[in-house]
Amino acid sequence: MKDENSPPDPGASPLLPPVLGMVGGGYRTRLTAQAAISLGIGFRVLADAPDDSAAQVAPGVGSVFGGNRSTDEVLAFAAGCEVLTFEREDVPEELLGKLEPQTPQVAIRPSPATLRLVRDNAARGDGLRSFGFAVAGPGVAAGPGVAAGGRELAVSVARSPEGQGVTYPVTLMLRRDGERREFIAPAPDLDPDLALEAQRIALKLAAELRLTGLLTIELVESGGQLSIGDLAATPHDSGLWTMDGAATSAFEQYLRAILDLPFGTPGAVAANAVTVTVLGGDDPDVFTRFVHVMAADSGARVHIYTNQVSQIRPGCRVGHVTVTGDDLEQVRDRAWRAANYLGLGTEDPTEYPA
Amino acid sequence: MKDENSPPDPGASPLLPPVLGMVGGGYRTRLTAQAAISLGIGFRVLADAPDDSAAQVAPGVGSVFGGNRSTDEVLAFAAGCEVLTFEREDVPEELLGKLEPQTPQVAIRPSPATLRLVRDNAARGDGLRSFGFAVAGPGVAAGPGVAAGGRELAVSVARSPEGQGVTYPVTLMLRRDGERREFIAPAPDLDPDLALEAQRIALKLAAELRLTGLLTIELVESGGQLSIGDLAATPHDSGLWTMDGAATSAFEQYLRAILDLPFGTPGAVAANAVTVTVLGGDDPDVFTRFVHVMAADSGARVHIYTNQVSQIRPGCRVGHVTVTGDDLEQVRDRAWRAANYLGLGTEDPTEYPA
Repeated sequence: MKDENSPPDPGASPLLPPVLGMVGGGYRTRLTAQAAISLGIGFRVLADAPDDSAAQVAPGVGSVFGGNRSTDEVLAFAAGCEVLTFEREDVPEELLGKLEPQTPQVAIRPSPATLRLVRDNAARGDGLRSFGFAVAGPGVAAGPGVAAGGRELAVSVARSPEGQGVTYPVTLMLRRDGERREFIAPAPDLDPDLALEAQRIALKLAAELRLTGLLTIELVESGGQLSIGDLAATPHDSGLWTMDGAATSAFEQYLRAILDLPFGTPGAVAANAVTVTVLGGDDPDVFTRFVHVMAADSGARVHIYTNQVSQIRPGCRVGHVTVTGDDLEQVRDRAWRAANYLGLGTEDPTEYPA
Repeated sequence: MKDENSPPDPGASPLLPPVLGMVGGGYRTRLTAQAAISLGIGFRVLADAPDDSAAQVAPGVGSVFGGNRSTDEVLAFAAGCEVLTFEREDVPEELLGKLEPQTPQVAIRPSPATLRLVRDNAARGDGLRSFGFAVAGPGVAAGPGVAAGGRELAVSVARSPEGQGVTYPVTLMLRRDGERREFIAPAPDLDPDLALEAQRIALKLAAELRLTGLLTIELVESGGQLSIGDLAATPHDSGLWTMDGAATSAFEQYLRAILDLPFGTPGAVAANAVTVTVLGGDDPDVFTRFVHVMAADSGARVHIYTNQVSQIRPGCRVGHVTVTGDDLEQVRDRAWRAANYLGLGTEDPTEYPA
């Protein structure tokens, strides 16, 4: 009795683990590369330079450096992979149009069709309305203004080519100085029915988009109603907490989705997880600051995205901190103190460590 | 008021994050490289070939391939690092003797003196006796025979240059067909006083050895007494479970110790963690088997050490599986089923997934 769950036929020629190529050398690719190590796959990065965040940690044999990342460079990179994916959705149409015809043996995940839908919805929201979803504004880029009208939430769903899907807990996103800096999971004080509704929207929309990958929907909660803000089909900041706070991180789940692997348990491993992003300050010596944070809070999980001091610039993202625990206010305080200290933020750094 | 916890002086020249070099291209280096990504340090590997397990995931800029790893090759590799460490303790004396004189600017961690003590104790046990410890046998390599006389335990301690130390829960090690295959943490049915005694022995011995790094002591428990079996001063298999079962993995803790960084919380995140190693079977297509395991047990954490089918050989280690949870027997069963299926082990693979 042979079915999908039977062991592989010993007579069949062995399948190589797939080689995955990811276009973009930033921190999202870096964190995806870290997750890929456990899966035993080949992982290649198309970065601009050897010092790019992801190139610092990607295997040399597969790394390719494309100074201006032309269409031809990406096509040549794709040809060496079984699966191709992107760090960001804003793939130029010229490239999207050529990928499938010119590299037919390569699986493009998410597909160009899905990437176009995500991009077009991000521009107009028309498609979302046609699917019957409430849309937060005329465009999608909700921006700081929208936050005043409600809470910004995010929900992610991973979906396989066959339509299997898993969702993550709804995450609250908070801004400081206009920029999204803090992510709290699960979103506090969220009506459980609304949380379920958010997950239902994510699953439905992923199916409508025929997504293979990880879809993150940004939602605005206002007056007990949810409306869709923005969409993302690549790893999203609202999933950073899952690296230390979920049984299977969103980065690994993203890999499983685009490689058509069964999903891992997405559940949270603590009552609360809070991630705060770290922005570079005037002091580029983040590493020494990291040492002080380690000494002050042995449970704070710090992730630094570069080993190049020259890349630590004021206002630029250089890492994130995640803290998990039972007492939400304590967890938030610890995450902010660590992030502020690392980045010479708004609080007086001489006050930390306490 | 300036003290060690004050923020760095903005006038001081920024410190680069250190570049760590690790000699050896096997799975221990691979897992250490994965942990190093979060720390934002430079990480270089001295491997024999680009296809070595660790070289597959190490940054190309720093990877060095030394075909026969001569003393000169290692010295040249060391000269490009701020800190040098080893995947295994069995560093040739010729190399140990030359490292400090010829690369005085490089911190060798653990130190050659400590590595010699560990190696010599492993050979004779005399040093251990002189420190006042009970030693399991005339030599140290406890071997399968010793297991008949008692339970094999392991305890790890990370120790900083200034003597700060953290210990991990005591782990029970079980053999199958003479080989250590299963690691259970915390060791079940261990008298809490003996567990504390094991941790005390580890802390004391690490101090006696003036260790900077991670020391793992293998112990034999027999008749309510503990005696020391073997020692390891590099990442040890008894710490594999910490990757998915502890707040800070032993691999990250090892990095923190040798880089003189404050330690992370070592605590277990679940009531029980069980790791079973995966040995290659007749079928080299481990990746397809991995897919089936993912489908059958979405909570099993599988780590595969290679993306090269040619490296999947019968009886050779190719990965490990960790399962955590409340019910120890269930956790053990899940870990063994996954490991056996992946490796075409002793159980009938057609019975899995259930």
